[in-house]
Amino acid sequence: MPTIAYFGPRGTFTEQAARGFDDAAELVAYPTIPLAVAALRAGEADFACVPVENSVEGSVSATMDALAAGEPVVAVAEHVLPIRFSVLVRPGTAAADVRTVASHPHALAQVQRWLAEHLPGAQQVTAGSTAAAAVGVAEGAHDAAVTAPVAARHYPLAELATGVADEGDALTRFLLLAKPGALPAPTGADRTSVFAVVAHRPGELAALLTEFALRGVNLSRIESRPLRDRFGEYRFYLDLDGHVAEARVGDALAALHRRSQLVRFLGSYPRADRVGTAAPQAGTDTDFAESARWLAGLRQGEHA
Amino acid sequence: MPTIAYFGPRGTFTEQAARGFDDAAELVAYPTIPLAVAALRAGEADFACVPVENSVEGSVSATMDALAAGEPVVAVAEHVLPIRFSVLVRPGTAAADVRTVASHPHALAQVQRWLAEHLPGAQQVTAGSTAAAAVGVAEGAHDAAVTAPVAARHYPLAELATGVADEGDALTRFLLLAKPGALPAPTGADRTSVFAVVAHRPGELAALLTEFALRGVNLSRIESRPLRDRFGEYRFYLDLDGHVAEARVGDALAALHRRSQLVRFLGSYPRADRVGTAAPQAGTDTDFAESARWLAGLRQGEHA
Repeated sequence: MPTIAYFGPRGTFTEQAARGFDDAAELVAYPTIPLAVAALRAGEADFACVPVENSVEGSVSATMDALAAGEPVVAVAEHVLPIRFSVLVRPGTAAADVRTVASHPHALAQVQRWLAEHLPGAQQVTAGSTAAAAVGVAEGAHDAAVTAPVAARHYPLAELATGVADEGDALTRFLLLAKPGALPAPTGADRTSVFAVVAHRPGELAALLTEFALRGVNLSRIESRPLRDRFGEYRFYLDLDGHVAEARVGDALAALHRRSQLVRFLGSYPRADRVGTAAPQAGTDTDFAESARWLAGLRQGEHA
Repeated sequence: MPTIAYFGPRGTFTEQAARGFDDAAELVAYPTIPLAVAALRAGEADFACVPVENSVEGSVSATMDALAAGEPVVAVAEHVLPIRFSVLVRPGTAAADVRTVASHPHALAQVQRWLAEHLPGAQQVTAGSTAAAAVGVAEGAHDAAVTAPVAARHYPLAELATGVADEGDALTRFLLLAKPGALPAPTGADRTSVFAVVAHRPGELAALLTEFALRGVNLSRIESRPLRDRFGEYRFYLDLDGHVAEARVGDALAALHRRSQLVRFLGSYPRADRVGTAAPQAGTDTDFAESARWLAGLRQGEHA
């Protein structure tokens, strides 16, 4: 049975994502994202589950910084959860009885309209995590907690409401990390993540993105990382559609390598939404193979 | 005396940044970033102070989402703080007495090496904010709190250590927001922030960044925002060197407007580091004025 280290505590969205990867795995909570990744690096766990985009409780910066430095780790899968909360209370508590509602500040920020409508008189109290808020309700410190749905599994609380969200279409993305090894096989609907450091001058980033565009490789995410007291370089994180095993993706990554001071490959893995990525015209593996054969022939004196 | 709404509670890095903007201002804490921005929009405050990059406690996503939707607000100043913590204890407490150390999970994540070296036996406890951790120490719930330096002003606690950070060069950037009005005057060392939505297809982003590169406008930050259950568009946030009053910056922004489904101007304001931005060759305001005169002349039948 594999072990998954995750950014805890128990009862958060990250636990819910870890169960989404493998509900039979042994889950071990760590108090911070770097500690969860360190457990993977140290061999205490087979995998680590961390938020990577638009997280409710985890700093996405912390995840990216953990991936960018230290022993290499790679993503082997992703999982996407809608950002919808449950509101938990002690059994028998009605909405009219709720005087205080607790949660992580990021979670409170995402349910302001719902709270104004359904618990308008309740005082808002911040907690270290959505799960800590649930513990606070169970212990009588607060009347209601805004939590991940999975929290209802762990605490003797009742659901006052579920599916709570001001914006219905927001998502959180999580990665399952492993030590480098055999890559997940291409599925035709894959994503590749990389971290790179390039010279910071006008036009450098435009040139680099043009390398991807010329090969028909779509970028699904770009983020410059992070503000430091350092000039003359540009650190960023890219997600692109496709698998490193595909010719156009590999060719674009090789161009990225030539243009970068540092590149770190962070994995090719199936997309959670299973949306396929078709190679563009003149960018299929066959096109690349034929052009390589033609060039090799030229170099051997063949002019056919 | 102006009023600044800030992402609280009292004693956090955001309070420290708000004091950095105007130490004489009346500061009013709000429990979430959207509520601080809403207070500005509602006229309850003259300004709002929010983290925008690499924040310890605030979700930068929350700030950008608050800027992207709702009544327009613009940045009029930025402030940068080094991410260095104080470790606060009750007076008379020595390091050897510390059994529990509390803080916001993001803050704990940034002092793991320091804690391993200086408080190796202490159990780590998460709190809703660095300031909430300080309150917990004052009340006897924990022995030590990892906090913003400003927290020492508010609580009857002693500094066990200051300047604590695993990475010495990390920074947090804050913006001072106001309702739209007269722009801050160009200083020669300015930054401009915009939010844009463009069609999501290969090459679109590369083309857009090339518009900036061709005009010699350097991008200091790019971030795609955020993962939503929506396809066919690419939402992102850009920081660029220069002021919208400068010809090359205005011309690049006009090109961004032509290529975007939506653009929101988020302000031109002096850079905190005061590093000047020189116009590149062929990109000065004079160059733009002369080329415009020449073109107008052609259109009037002048061929000089």
